[in-house]
Amino acid sequence: MQESAHQALGSAGAPVVEALREALGASVVSLPAEFAGRSHADSSRMPCAEPIALVRPRTTKQAATALRICHAHCQPVVTQGGLSGLAGGACLLGGEVALSLELMNEIEEIDPVSATMTVQAGVPLQTVQEAADAAGFMFPLDLGARGSATIGGNLATNAGGNRVIRYGMMREQALDVEAVLANGSVVGGLRKMIKNNTGYDLRNLLIGSEGTLGVITRAVLRLRPKPRAVSTAWCGVPDYASVTTLLRLAQERLPAGVSAFEVMWPGYYDFVLTRLPELRAPLAGRHAFYVLLESSGAEPESQSAAFEAFLADMLEAGTLEDAALAANETHAAAFWAIRDAPGEYGRLIPGRVSFDVSFSIADVGEAARRCDERLRAHWPDATILIYGHLGDGNLHIVVQQPDWPASAAAEVKRTVYGVTGEMGGSVSAEHGIGTRKLEVLALSRTPAELAAMRAVKAALDPLGILNPGKLLAS
Amino acid sequence: MQESAHQALGSAGAPVVEALREALGASVVSLPAEFAGRSHADSSRMPCAEPIALVRPRTTKQAATALRICHAHCQPVVTQGGLSGLAGGACLLGGEVALSLELMNEIEEIDPVSATMTVQAGVPLQTVQEAADAAGFMFPLDLGARGSATIGGNLATNAGGNRVIRYGMMREQALDVEAVLANGSVVGGLRKMIKNNTGYDLRNLLIGSEGTLGVITRAVLRLRPKPRAVSTAWCGVPDYASVTTLLRLAQERLPAGVSAFEVMWPGYYDFVLTRLPELRAPLAGRHAFYVLLESSGAEPESQSAAFEAFLADMLEAGTLEDAALAANETHAAAFWAIRDAPGEYGRLIPGRVSFDVSFSIADVGEAARRCDERLRAHWPDATILIYGHLGDGNLHIVVQQPDWPASAAAEVKRTVYGVTGEMGGSVSAEHGIGTRKLEVLALSRTPAELAAMRAVKAALDPLGILNPGKLLAS
Repeated sequence: MQESAHQALGSAGAPVVEALREALGASVVSLPAEFAGRSHADSSRMPCAEPIALVRPRTTKQAATALRICHAHCQPVVTQGGLSGLAGGACLLGGEVALSLELMNEIEEIDPVSATMTVQAGVPLQTVQEAADAAGFMFPLDLGARGSATIGGNLATNAGGNRVIRYGMMREQALDVEAVLANGSVVGGLRKMIKNNTGYDLRNLLIGSEGTLGVITRAVLRLRPKPRAVSTAWCGVPDYASVTTLLRLAQERLPAGVSAFEVMWPGYYDFVLTRLPELRAPLAGRHAFYVLLESSGAEPESQSAAFEAFLADMLEAGTLEDAALAANETHAAAFWAIRDAPGEYGRLIPGRVSFDVSFSIADVGEAARRCDERLRAHWPDATILIYGHLGDGNLHIVVQQPDWPASAAAEVKRTVYGVTGEMGGSVSAEHGIGTRKLEVLALSRTPAELAAMRAVKAALDPLGILNPGKLLAS
Repeated sequence: MQESAHQALGSAGAPVVEALREALGASVVSLPAEFAGRSHADSSRMPCAEPIALVRPRTTKQAATALRICHAHCQPVVTQGGLSGLAGGACLLGGEVALSLELMNEIEEIDPVSATMTVQAGVPLQTVQEAADAAGFMFPLDLGARGSATIGGNLATNAGGNRVIRYGMMREQALDVEAVLANGSVVGGLRKMIKNNTGYDLRNLLIGSEGTLGVITRAVLRLRPKPRAVSTAWCGVPDYASVTTLLRLAQERLPAGVSAFEVMWPGYYDFVLTRLPELRAPLAGRHAFYVLLESSGAEPESQSAAFEAFLADMLEAGTLEDAALAANETHAAAFWAIRDAPGEYGRLIPGRVSFDVSFSIADVGEAARRCDERLRAHWPDATILIYGHLGDGNLHIVVQQPDWPASAAAEVKRTVYGVTGEMGGSVSAEHGIGTRKLEVLALSRTPAELAAMRAVKAALDPLGILNPGKLLAS
């Protein structure tokens, strides 16, 4: 079986393409000449080959037919959504069929009583957010690539983003997931149940499997009540212990809870304020840490009074050195603009090395300190930006130095992933493994866990046709 | 392989017991003569055999040794916790080794900064709740059997309970799970990360697998801020549409959200108030539905004002016909006593048939109506009690008639599960499949899903030694 899979890889797969085209037609199956000029790469900046055919099903049934044919031909398949992934999970290694869900882009139903939305995998995240909003709800998952990222891709990578602290990752947003398995069988019944203890959790097994266990075709999403009031503050904090105290007390005392708790180290803050002149400093002084604190709830008046009183208490206790309260949405947007500056990295920091790691909340401060110290020891003049969703233990680290040697990136990775491994952290908090983090996966997973994953992979995709070479090294 | 497993089943397994005893000693491995008189059955009232040996490891390493030996001997193993399960998942079919986690009952660490508790599987739920409370947190999972149910059992069955609407099921309470697989290998690193996208979600695969994929030995639990104020009301509601309106508006408008939304049909309400004279009716009149509404949050004054104002609005709009606000904890406890009356069923309704089904929230009303109508058509005088966690779509139905024939139970099940199947519901919302719901599992899972589950089972437990005959029919 392995042998014939390799044959298909090498032979440009003409018979499988013919079989696909015959079964599904030219409107679903395109040949290289027909999609010339189309880019197939995701946002990871990893190399990407051309597919031998591009399959764009309009229905689950068509997707199932495509998989059944590929399975019969031992033909590798790479599933593609909005191509906004950062780990190379959707890139082509060569010889694969690309299966794009872009034409399965309908919202099939909004059920306001059950607070659910049934969608096809190719619907962009932003479309889902807007439809939820129009129906009087909120779909809480949010991330920078919302306009292009699709729900199917969000599910396949278990996307995170800014509101995880309050609403959880993508896996918490889906009540059921429909997927086509490698052999063309379809699992998942688009069920709207919140509670369903009937056997193994196939839904969560598929979510985050990066296209290696099945092709997610549709999902039932969970909608949330729309917050009617948002309180936002920019905080200057004297030390890391105060940062975690602020987090804990905010979660305990704010009547509407904490909907964002974004921490920025001074290196990040100084860099983005210097390099992006449109940003304005919310506070006059400098501080050891900056926290963007947000609380969103149902009751504007009492909520904002309690938010203000909480900040006053924290200032009095010395947990905060200074704080600026957003008086309106424009102020709040200006605070968020500082946190959202990474959208400008492409222009500001070419050649950067970026990390998306996580630790226990107690360890984040020490992990950041060790990374900074060891990076500085090698490269005293490097730009080192550290910030993250602290409420989730998620740290983003960006390192760059103009004109450093080609070997530097590997050295920087060794340093940061070294700290991640020694502190029992995760080498990928949000973005997944793809091909980009294959070599460091073993820092966060034991040999027994990797063996169990391989056994599950072999059970559900015995021919290894689904996104081969991704997530688990073959 | 299958043959030798069956041999072990039939032969009372002397060689495997000898090997276990030699490796782990008599303090860990007991023989039938040594545990005479001990009950091994869970709370399902299903038949239960004696184990050929009782293994009680004190460490994960001992549990791994036990599994490795059982695996080498193709010896079936049933994992046991607090024996409070209702589906027969912990009952013995005959010839198995019982692996009880009761001696792994330590809380290993509370990390207040990360808001986590690391526990061994045998710790009772109530002990975890109390330790969390003493540390200034809350562990939100709660259910009637809290004193005997263990964390390991709660994980193995993905327990639900009264607070799912706010905090989710057991799978939402665990950041990591350590488990011994069938071959004795140990997965799970007791990691405290909230975000960890490094491969397949083995944690959620193990949670809810009812001892068929691995033996859960330890877990990192997530702690929550302790609510500082609880508002409780008993509501009389005119119709089902008003019940779902009340739910939606409460979730949207109550500043502290909804922490319980328990719905009772009048048959239930009348029955428990008549049969339990210690209960007092919270409202003077009768209503089509009764709702116990609870909101818990951080800010006592503004929260209770908003709660009262919300009830007044709902009364004025006609969504509520009447409502009683709990003025203090004693009042609230009296309301909860009406909802908690099922604790008295053993005495009140012998010979009852009970269901734990779920539907989309939109379908719950119609599902209950169909069940009631069809049951009444057969048994006009039966006691039919309907109530549930409506915020989760979870319905409990209890049916009984004195002196009905032995065939009635099967007929009642056909009726209720028939409605569940035709409305796309779940035959087990909370309690799992065990052996009790094996015959109806296919109503909630498609053949393709069952095939995928079997493939996963065969991948992780190829000899089928873990809890054979449970969850998936062999």
